[in-house]
Amino acid sequence: MSNSESKPAPGTAEQMINAGWYTELSPMWPGQGLTLKMKEVLYKSRSDFQDVCVFESESMGTVLLLDGVIQCTDRDEFSYQEMIAHIPMCSLERPAKKVLVVGGGDGGVLRELARYPHVEEIHMAEIDKMVPEVSKRFFPEMAVGFSDPRVTLHICDGIKFVEDAPADSYDLIVVDSSDPVGPAEVLFEKPFFEALHRAVRPGGIVCTQAESLWLHLDIIKALATMCSQVFVGGSVSYATTTIPTYPSGQIGMMVCAKASSAQPGGGEAGGAEGAGAPLDPRTPRQPEPGALPALGVGELQYYSHEVHTAAFALPVFAKKALAGCLTFQ
Amino acid sequence: MSNSESKPAPGTAEQMINAGWYTELSPMWPGQGLTLKMKEVLYKSRSDFQDVCVFESESMGTVLLLDGVIQCTDRDEFSYQEMIAHIPMCSLERPAKKVLVVGGGDGGVLRELARYPHVEEIHMAEIDKMVPEVSKRFFPEMAVGFSDPRVTLHICDGIKFVEDAPADSYDLIVVDSSDPVGPAEVLFEKPFFEALHRAVRPGGIVCTQAESLWLHLDIIKALATMCSQVFVGGSVSYATTTIPTYPSGQIGMMVCAKASSAQPGGGEAGGAEGAGAPLDPRTPRQPEPGALPALGVGELQYYSHEVHTAAFALPVFAKKALAGCLTFQ
Repeated sequence: MSNSESKPAPGTAEQMINAGWYTELSPMWPGQGLTLKMKEVLYKSRSDFQDVCVFESESMGTVLLLDGVIQCTDRDEFSYQEMIAHIPMCSLERPAKKVLVVGGGDGGVLRELARYPHVEEIHMAEIDKMVPEVSKRFFPEMAVGFSDPRVTLHICDGIKFVEDAPADSYDLIVVDSSDPVGPAEVLFEKPFFEALHRAVRPGGIVCTQAESLWLHLDIIKALATMCSQVFVGGSVSYATTTIPTYPSGQIGMMVCAKASSAQPGGGEAGGAEGAGAPLDPRTPRQPEPGALPALGVGELQYYSHEVHTAAFALPVFAKKALAGCLTFQ
Repeated sequence: MSNSESKPAPGTAEQMINAGWYTELSPMWPGQGLTLKMKEVLYKSRSDFQDVCVFESESMGTVLLLDGVIQCTDRDEFSYQEMIAHIPMCSLERPAKKVLVVGGGDGGVLRELARYPHVEEIHMAEIDKMVPEVSKRFFPEMAVGFSDPRVTLHICDGIKFVEDAPADSYDLIVVDSSDPVGPAEVLFEKPFFEALHRAVRPGGIVCTQAESLWLHLDIIKALATMCSQVFVGGSVSYATTTIPTYPSGQIGMMVCAKASSAQPGGGEAGGAEGAGAPLDPRTPRQPEPGALPALGVGELQYYSHEVHTAAFALPVFAKKALAGCLTFQ
């Protein structure tokens, strides 16, 4: 058995392709990586912000890479897209009318938000115009959300878009970012969360991609601590989902609810709820969304109310590590 | 970007090692595989039944391979071992006194079962004596269970051991098998489950390793259907856990409860419970097990009652596929 210490250098996609297999290596998950058999590279380019690559895999359908990191595959994208959209949507005390997605240029979260007939406006602030273009071309089932008439796509810096938004103007903001390296790094920092907190209405929710319990407890702990400092009087909770093509097969989301009425340090006017108790997102309050016949979108494949509640049940090791940082767990 | 169609052949460990990285390929998960950076191969041999290999990895601690498939790593073994032991143990209506593990030669399930002071006898039927030997040498934290005075290790054919057991003699049987290829194939077949059903007491539980929802829904469906035919009047349910080093980052277990009293077609004498309603394992009935100070084992890292119940909340795609095959889901 050979046991050479030579090491494939993580970095560009070229370095990680070996005999028709693509291996996803990164300093974000040192010493491990998912390997996928490639059938064909369909697209490869460099945008203003990142490397963009699409390949057809043997077992996972079409795969989107940004800077060499798997963003989504046909096979399992529904898990992440459904959970990061429907957990916050179903947690709200009153149905959302105006929602914002920061990032998420593949369109999958848009597709999920568009299932709700009561939603009137869906805005997306995506920094990289190449991502929606590539998604429309290679991932028609994800990009279907772009064709909903309620959707407005803003190609811009998501942080500036949120900063410029009127205060209290969104029921829900979903931050569908890549990992906190490269262009998405600032989407994990306090100034952005302060802007998010300002832009969401009292009683509204900010839900952000928040890495894996198995790999990134330190990042999650720092993020939860920072969110708790920003969402004073509200709540900060963490939910997870399984997804085979993300590192370690799991990813989570931080669910931050803004105080619904004046709270010490919160400084917000009373919302419709008015009770002042922080929103507990573990219990769904809105009905499960149905199919979206107008867009030809199929039924939900992952999310249900039962899965919603179960997603907040953290393994003991994670619960201990995050004790004191989360409002509900 | 190169895109050669040449393919590393799945098979022996030698074929899957490339420049110090070990890639786990198998026809059980075609087109994908986990890659781990190796530091050192610690052991490599061929037992009477399979290839046995132990290596030190960069990020997951020590790794055990059987026939080239990852069985456990220091980093995440607790998830599987705790869940396959404590879900059935905590589901029983009265505390278990006599338990059996079929397979599980690494000792991790023994360690978890030994946490219960009310357990009087723990038997293990492991076919391959090399596995416990290797575990004691390279995985002392897993193998600690072997040193519990209530444990008896039987190196034998697990099927024959179960067939020879007195009827109604175990409160719980855990089948901690590898995948249904090679020596473990028969552990997924009906004659074995009929023997298990006979050997477990009325109201008792058989809990078996049952593959991944993301990869093996067809196997799981066939297994659930067969279990329902065997555990007539009882219940068959499915629970999952996350575990990064198993294919797709997830594995599940089939939880089969034997009817607690005479049922049409069940043919068993009334047990202590006597009510006749099938046991619903989604609700724990026994307290969470504490630490096991005598063996120096730490506290639970994954399992809690909350995680127990959440483990039965299946994603919609799985729930639909298994509809009609499971008693509770």
